[in-house]
Amino acid sequence: MSESVVDAANTRLQTTIPVAWNMGVRFLELRPGLARAQVPFEGNGNHFGVIYAGVTFTVAETLGGALHLATFDATTHYPLVKSMTIDFLKPGTGALTATTSLTDDEIATIRSAATPDAKVDFELVAEVTDDAGVVVARTRGDYQIRPFGR
Amino acid sequence: MSESVVDAANTRLQTTIPVAWNMGVRFLELRPGLARAQVPFEGNGNHFGVIYAGVTFTVAETLGGALHLATFDATTHYPLVKSMTIDFLKPGTGALTATTSLTDDEIATIRSAATPDAKVDFELVAEVTDDAGVVVARTRGDYQIRPFGR
Repeated sequence: MSESVVDAANTRLQTTIPVAWNMGVRFLELRPGLARAQVPFEGNGNHFGVIYAGVTFTVAETLGGALHLATFDATTHYPLVKSMTIDFLKPGTGALTATTSLTDDEIATIRSAATPDAKVDFELVAEVTDDAGVVVARTRGDYQIRPFGR
Repeated sequence: MSESVVDAANTRLQTTIPVAWNMGVRFLELRPGLARAQVPFEGNGNHFGVIYAGVTFTVAETLGGALHLATFDATTHYPLVKSMTIDFLKPGTGALTATTSLTDDEIATIRSAATPDAKVDFELVAEVTDDAGVVVARTRGDYQIRPFGR
């Protein structure tokens, strides 16, 4: 079950955000309230020998759509990002893994607010770690789920 | 003179941040205190028919390095981004142009602080506009120029 959600999210990423797919962003783990994605170093480095800032941003930002898919009703609402802050803490010199989560209470609050006509704002905090588990970046994103056709 | 700085910055971008180059990011205008870059829609759209958030981030973020190249001493110091906030204001449905600038006073302050041993922080605010001049995103980045070999 969990694997099929991951497969569906990766297939969707390839067709909906090809630029992220082409960086090598892949979802690793998805369940209600949790999303994890990885991006390889190859092709994404900069002149410091570290992954470029825009790639670190992307692997974290794409978590919002995947978490939505795994957690909320993707037949009635779609997600978008309104604002994001990213702090670069350490150079990322290998593959990077980004993880975000919502608590059960947060999920319940968003679900109950997401009536057919309602736009619902929510915040996601993500950590981006390297292969050794060192946190190389942190993000705070303001997302919104919005009903289709509005 | 101005054209050759633009050419140098684009050549440098291709070799130092290939992932941004491959999105089609190109510097259009560079002089001390001003940097402008563009990114095409083609290949960078998402499922909403708008440019993907990570591309908008990238066209704005790369301004920091280009502005550094055109404004400060690139033989003694290199730039890096420490933190960035991006607000997505409108969907970008075509090519996007990002512009940032520093005042003469800001340039003088940073130059005088950039002694051989000094790391110098500075902030860049950028606007990202569409073909019609509508502001689709704003960024505020905390950059630092850092002496080589430190």
